[in-house]
Amino acid sequence: MPTKTLGELAEYIGGQLRGDPNVIITSASTLGRAHEGDISFLVNRKYQKQLRTTKASAVIVGKEIGESSVPLIIADDPYYAFMQIMVLLHGHRKHKKVGISTRASISDSAKVGVDCNIHDFVVVADEARIGDGCVIYPSVFIGQGVQIGNDSIIYANVTIYDGCTIGNRVIINANSTIGEDGFGYASYKGIHHKIPQIGGVVIEDDVEIGACCGVERGTLGDTIIGQGSKLGDLVTIGHGTKIGPHCLLVAQVGIAGSTTLGHHCVVGGQVGIVGHINIGNNVTIAAQAGVVNNIPDGQVVLGAPAIEANQGKRAYSMIQYLPEMRQNIRNLQSQIEQMNSSVESDTEKTTEHDIEP
Amino acid sequence: MPTKTLGELAEYIGGQLRGDPNVIITSASTLGRAHEGDISFLVNRKYQKQLRTTKASAVIVGKEIGESSVPLIIADDPYYAFMQIMVLLHGHRKHKKVGISTRASISDSAKVGVDCNIHDFVVVADEARIGDGCVIYPSVFIGQGVQIGNDSIIYANVTIYDGCTIGNRVIINANSTIGEDGFGYASYKGIHHKIPQIGGVVIEDDVEIGACCGVERGTLGDTIIGQGSKLGDLVTIGHGTKIGPHCLLVAQVGIAGSTTLGHHCVVGGQVGIVGHINIGNNVTIAAQAGVVNNIPDGQVVLGAPAIEANQGKRAYSMIQYLPEMRQNIRNLQSQIEQMNSSVESDTEKTTEHDIEP
Amino acid sequence: MPTKTLGELAEYIGGQLRGDPNVIITSASTLGRAHEGDISFLVNRKYQKQLRTTKASAVIVGKEIGESSVPLIIADDPYYAFMQIMVLLHGHRKHKKVGISTRASISDSAKVGVDCNIHDFVVVADEARIGDGCVIYPSVFIGQGVQIGNDSIIYANVTIYDGCTIGNRVIINANSTIGEDGFGYASYKGIHHKIPQIGGVVIEDDVEIGACCGVERGTLGDTIIGQGSKLGDLVTIGHGTKIGPHCLLVAQVGIAGSTTLGHHCVVGGQVGIVGHINIGNNVTIAAQAGVVNNIPDGQVVLGAPAIEANQGKRAYSMIQYLPEMRQNIRNLQSQIEQMNSSVESDTEKTTEHDIEP
Repeated sequence: MPTKTLGELAEYIGGQLRGDPNVIITSASTLGRAHEGDISFLVNRKYQKQLRTTKASAVIVGKEIGESSVPLIIADDPYYAFMQIMVLLHGHRKHKKVGISTRASISDSAKVGVDCNIHDFVVVADEARIGDGCVIYPSVFIGQGVQIGNDSIIYANVTIYDGCTIGNRVIINANSTIGEDGFGYASYKGIHHKIPQIGGVVIEDDVEIGACCGVERGTLGDTIIGQGSKLGDLVTIGHGTKIGPHCLLVAQVGIAGSTTLGHHCVVGGQVGIVGHINIGNNVTIAAQAGVVNNIPDGQVVLGAPAIEANQGKRAYSMIQYLPEMRQNIRNLQSQIEQMNSSVESDTEKTTEHDIEP
Repeated sequence: MPTKTLGELAEYIGGQLRGDPNVIITSASTLGRAHEGDISFLVNRKYQKQLRTTKASAVIVGKEIGESSVPLIIADDPYYAFMQIMVLLHGHRKHKKVGISTRASISDSAKVGVDCNIHDFVVVADEARIGDGCVIYPSVFIGQGVQIGNDSIIYANVTIYDGCTIGNRVIINANSTIGEDGFGYASYKGIHHKIPQIGGVVIEDDVEIGACCGVERGTLGDTIIGQGSKLGDLVTIGHGTKIGPHCLLVAQVGIAGSTTLGHHCVVGGQVGIVGHINIGNNVTIAAQAGVVNNIPDGQVVLGAPAIEANQGKRAYSMIQYLPEMRQNIRNLQSQIEQMNSSVESDTEKTTEHDIEP
Repeated sequence: MPTKTLGELAEYIGGQLRGDPNVIITSASTLGRAHEGDISFLVNRKYQKQLRTTKASAVIVGKEIGESSVPLIIADDPYYAFMQIMVLLHGHRKHKKVGISTRASISDSAKVGVDCNIHDFVVVADEARIGDGCVIYPSVFIGQGVQIGNDSIIYANVTIYDGCTIGNRVIINANSTIGEDGFGYASYKGIHHKIPQIGGVVIEDDVEIGACCGVERGTLGDTIIGQGSKLGDLVTIGHGTKIGPHCLLVAQVGIAGSTTLGHHCVVGGQVGIVGHINIGNNVTIAAQAGVVNNIPDGQVVLGAPAIEANQGKRAYSMIQYLPEMRQNIRNLQSQIEQMNSSVESDTEKTTEHDIEP
């Protein structure tokens, strides 16, 4: 079990300690589930009252938190500090040193760098190149001419089609597919004719791809996942689409072909984005949105069709009032009819009056 | 071919027979497709008229059905009775006895129970434990320290990451992934830093998981799929989410992290549920709903955002009237303007009248 | 590198050449990315102005395009002509001749046709039959009694369950699952009892299935994917559903069980279709729609719930005006209240008037 003192942790993350530096920390947990020896963190103010009841031995908090009975570390960014401590205490997954398994099938024309671990039943096809320090889990298929950089991790049952390029420190989770043909057919006289997809896929450095994702190869140019971007599970990216660096695409996002995303976009779960549009930089798209138009830099959108978020939040939350609104309209219509008929009868009276005297 | 008499079947399911007990039944089918020798069932009243035209040799029905020219078995729950007869006639899939393949790769430190069938190209990593009577199909990867109970079936190309726990009589369909890292990053100065995901996944007894699903491991605690729950294809469950017992999650459902579902919930296809909320017991969520708030026990919801179903059904079905409603509002506005201006002119007249005489 | 003259290409596609027939073409690209030696195409008029700036050596266009500084080939259907030229220049993927790998595991009772390529770590179970000229990539599992026609391509890590039938020239992309059990349970006293799924899956000739798809086997009859239909990535088809010939199902479509689609339907990305309904021929369903009712031949629908497209486009795009509409209704209500009260006071006055003189 890892062991650090609270003082060591505060120093490590550059935080300010309020409490006994000799408290022993062995793991981390949420405020609600923490036991003695755990350090926890508080980011979302809605959990602040748990500070009084948590069994954590210490809590990382932002500057705005005052007194507390539990020892605190004050950090600029408590969640980032928590990540640092998680890495310090537990590290990332340790991969067994298996070397290159004799049960793997590696083409004579493939090149594998030093310090790689290639598990049983992996297939590396002709002219593929794998850099140094990579881990390739069982039953991965690496197609002809694929290039993988250094220190990348490919989990079990992943398939990478011919000619794709994977950067350094990339992580691809199990059962994902990279580089299948784009969904491209020319329909002629009722028959869908397959268009050769001669582009590739480029996964840049530091990308992580979830489980069961599909990233299509481009028809002509490449499909690109930009540096440091992270894809959740069951995400699919269409042919020729270019995702900028440092984007977050949550689970089950689907982006059609030839669309461009800028950098630092956040795309919520189950979002769908049509093809051939441009999404700017720092765009945020709420879960389940359906995006059919270009989005300028920095905009936040939601809904299907997706509209600006403040407007959208009010608009979509009003769908529940539709029956009431429709009834109100009907009431107004009948009120006005009544008024009109009473005005008419009044007018008739008045007219009579005008005539009669 | 299996062969039973109608009398035997009626007795087996404890139903009441109306017809010849000697009729021979060899298979089952729907009312519309049944041939002689088939038994069928009627649950949905909309198919009742097919009773007159079906070629089935017998039909299982509920108590409310009266006369029929085809032999009937009256059952409390016709669909459950149909299931019992399907199992009696056809049984569940028979798995070939292959023993432990010499082409499988099983760590010396792994333990495999008796009567297991482990197919070619399976990898069982260090310290994994597999109970008795399990079937592990080709190219499955079972990570380090994974524990699997008795009589579980893992279909081809499934990946189970290190440290996950699978119960008894669990079925995991092909190409699913259990225990990939949760989608957890601390974003700091524009870079997304991966947070170690040190929790696991617990799949309790009698769970079935569809094809191409992804169940993330927890960041700190475990992700749990409760006893007897069933997941359709392409479902994804976020890190730390806890699904209660006996839930049904239809295909393409996505649930974000740290959410809790109670027992006996039914979640329709393509539903999305945000993280960090609580769904009660016996909750029903209609297909494609987007759930962003807690749901109390027993509630039925639909739509995105999801609202109570009766209200929601009326509200969402009214979206089609929006253009008409908007036009009606405009008509009302111009009517009122007209009325106001005519009232004004009346008032003017009246005023003149008042002044002039 | 492939090399053709523009004259050869014009003749090959039966198009009319406007420009120098001796121009050398070596590849194809989009108008925006083309270099010298590339042929491009113009289908969408919104890109027409790129004709003036493209670096392509020639462009395939429709009849309506007039003068251009770049050489043109006039074709009846420019996209189809582009496909033909892509095939001529680049061909479809070439599959390495590997014969039948000694590292594959093929049952003695299975039959494999001539000219097949069966890669390492493929498992072909008992009594399976594979036709001539098939390519089976690594770690594919072909279950007992599966039948595959001629010239089909099964990419890596695909799983085909027992008894499924795959036609000729079928392509199944990586990590897809064919024939897993349908999502069928009889719920009785709070327990979900699995119903044996004794139907199969039939994938007809010339179908292509994307990566990470799941096609469930039928409960009683077969699930059918009709001839020439194409499925994108992460599509799931429920048990007993029948897709007609020449349909296009874009990525992440989900269709529940026992539904029927006619021929030449186009189903957009992330569409959900409920079970037990009938979709006609030539139906188009826009992305993200939620289909809950039968759709007649030729109709175009959108939205969730899905409605006729022209109506739907106007209706769903009006959600953004809901807050304004609600406010307008309130304004109308208060205006009418005011008018009513002023009419009342007028009436009072008038009444007084009537009385007083």
